[in-house]
Amino acid sequence: MSRVITFLTDFGPFYVSQMKGVILQRTDDVVFVDIATDIPPQDVRSGAFALMVASRYFPRGTIHIAVVDPGVGTERAAICVESGGHVFLGPDNGILMPAARALGSPVAWMLDVPDNASPTFHGRDIFAPAAAEIACGTPLRDIGRPFEPKDLDLGSPRVVANGIEANVIYVDNFGNVILNMRYLPDMDVRLMGRRLKRVRTYGEAGWNESLITLGSHGFAEIAVNGGSAAELFGLSTGDKIVLEDMSCSE
Amino acid sequence: MSRVITFLTDFGPFYVSQMKGVILQRTDDVVFVDIATDIPPQDVRSGAFALMVASRYFPRGTIHIAVVDPGVGTERAAICVESGGHVFLGPDNGILMPAARALGSPVAWMLDVPDNASPTFHGRDIFAPAAAEIACGTPLRDIGRPFEPKDLDLGSPRVVANGIEANVIYVDNFGNVILNMRYLPDMDVRLMGRRLKRVRTYGEAGWNESLITLGSHGFAEIAVNGGSAAELFGLSTGDKIVLEDMSCSE
Amino acid sequence: MSRVITFLTDFGPFYVSQMKGVILQRTDDVVFVDIATDIPPQDVRSGAFALMVASRYFPRGTIHIAVVDPGVGTERAAICVESGGHVFLGPDNGILMPAARALGSPVAWMLDVPDNASPTFHGRDIFAPAAAEIACGTPLRDIGRPFEPKDLDLGSPRVVANGIEANVIYVDNFGNVILNMRYLPDMDVRLMGRRLKRVRTYGEAGWNESLITLGSHGFAEIAVNGGSAAELFGLSTGDKIVLEDMSCSE
Repeated sequence: MSRVITFLTDFGPFYVSQMKGVILQRTDDVVFVDIATDIPPQDVRSGAFALMVASRYFPRGTIHIAVVDPGVGTERAAICVESGGHVFLGPDNGILMPAARALGSPVAWMLDVPDNASPTFHGRDIFAPAAAEIACGTPLRDIGRPFEPKDLDLGSPRVVANGIEANVIYVDNFGNVILNMRYLPDMDVRLMGRRLKRVRTYGEAGWNESLITLGSHGFAEIAVNGGSAAELFGLSTGDKIVLEDMSCSE
Repeated sequence: MSRVITFLTDFGPFYVSQMKGVILQRTDDVVFVDIATDIPPQDVRSGAFALMVASRYFPRGTIHIAVVDPGVGTERAAICVESGGHVFLGPDNGILMPAARALGSPVAWMLDVPDNASPTFHGRDIFAPAAAEIACGTPLRDIGRPFEPKDLDLGSPRVVANGIEANVIYVDNFGNVILNMRYLPDMDVRLMGRRLKRVRTYGEAGWNESLITLGSHGFAEIAVNGGSAAELFGLSTGDKIVLEDMSCSE
Repeated sequence: MSRVITFLTDFGPFYVSQMKGVILQRTDDVVFVDIATDIPPQDVRSGAFALMVASRYFPRGTIHIAVVDPGVGTERAAICVESGGHVFLGPDNGILMPAARALGSPVAWMLDVPDNASPTFHGRDIFAPAAAEIACGTPLRDIGRPFEPKDLDLGSPRVVANGIEANVIYVDNFGNVILNMRYLPDMDVRLMGRRLKRVRTYGEAGWNESLITLGSHGFAEIAVNGGSAAELFGLSTGDKIVLEDMSCSE
């Protein structure tokens, strides 16, 4: 059986290809899948969300390398996390943890940082070699020392006086805006003065109508049928928004 | 022999990776190729053109998943089409048909939509599982009920008083503008007042000169040597243009 | 053992997928890796840099197809270069040579251009079929006639009155600006009036501080911690800059 190895980064295919080359020097019995190579620069939460959503669809045994890493070359640890039969490799800034927690009970190890590792590219010099080791059969207990990783909480919405406050955790290719909110509001809501139609799928809204739906990832998603919600509302990851309860605002 | 599976979508690598994960849960004896994951949002005709051009270069037995799908989750059917030994999976909005017709005589089936399929992501919950089934040997006749699919016509140019009217069906990475026109005009033409030099290849035009050539896909293509025709002329897919006959306009 | 085949182009995944299809018609015992499909249009030097940096991380036996090719369809030759056990395929405009020289002593052959090759897409009609031939075992001496290829020099910095003059050879996904300079200046420098802190890694600079570091590729790199240097300084590939010596400018 080939080993599946996924990549999630903010640094583009050019640097990811170097990681793939390093792995291929050890073994070509692999299937590579890019989850995303264009996470917004240094946006750890957006990367953590994407990894959590995508990793669960891969088979047990998959190795996921996720590197969104503002602290590369500083004191932050490089780690390996096992959970539910999946292996995660990346910096100890929490990016791996929502995914690992969603799949089971995470166990973590700290990887050695060799002296000759580039201080700006641990993906190539630490995580890719570790992935190759694991793909070639090195048991995880030999990969590093047991370690207690930093966690990262994607947060949850908060009921406020005029509605629900939530955060943007991902913006997809359509400009759909995904919130850290695992349900739909049970009342009619407005965003920046504009009503969001609650729907099952985009096509239930009128053309160019703003809508809110429970996305395929299980999180609430603001969209515009045939348009870009991110553009219309001027939103990007990290932004805080309020879904205004229409009944109380009248 | 590995099964080749291609992907053409408007929704980016993040969602495509989930489809690949679903397939890898069934089999890793696959070669994945992305034809495009960045078709202009919901531009079915642009997707149909790209699939038609690219699919013919793949070997018999290839499974092509093409999902540009404004109607996801509504009443439109999910279909499988066989033609010339290739298998196509996607929504019944015509996106598969120009490709399927180009390869032979299409035969189609309607896929079941399971109750628990996400109403916004049939790629992951219907088309990827169907591709995995087929890759693992399920015969097409067992994949669904015979079905008469919607067709889609990429259209053809029209002779008008002052020249030839055509539509933009694709804009490539260089900003080259591809028309739904399978020949070069046999007279000198102008677009928006600018002469288009008729050439065999880009380098036959002067630097920054506008040109028209028969592209590698067999369709007429407007380009600027060293520049972007889409930018210069302000064109995008779906636009209608007139190639003005220079002899009659004088 | 599978054959590793890499792709570096300026023309996007849609055209690259056609090259992969052509190869898969001959053999599916391959691993494809995209080094980059979004090199700035017709920027041969930027492509040559990326190929040189990435190719060295791949195993011996890898076939690299690199096509940034303003002269496609004109008289320029189509070539194959062997060096250090790697095979390079591309146009004879120098794009392959910095990579080939970095790996050993390049030996080159000129490929035949069949009459029916598209004058605008040699990637699909010449380089992909040649890669398939080689992957299937055709010895390089049978691939074409011995040939003396055009070289390309990425240049080197020049000491000038007020500091060091260098060229931008690559801009990465973060907007980091890479110079054709294989060392860090040994004095404090300014760019356009702004001090560049000399650091080992990005995190050693303050938030939004401009910095210069020796990148993972071994070249000097101008960055902004948490921002885009390309945007801040208005730089793109090909630009000439002067790193002003701060001691002499006072």
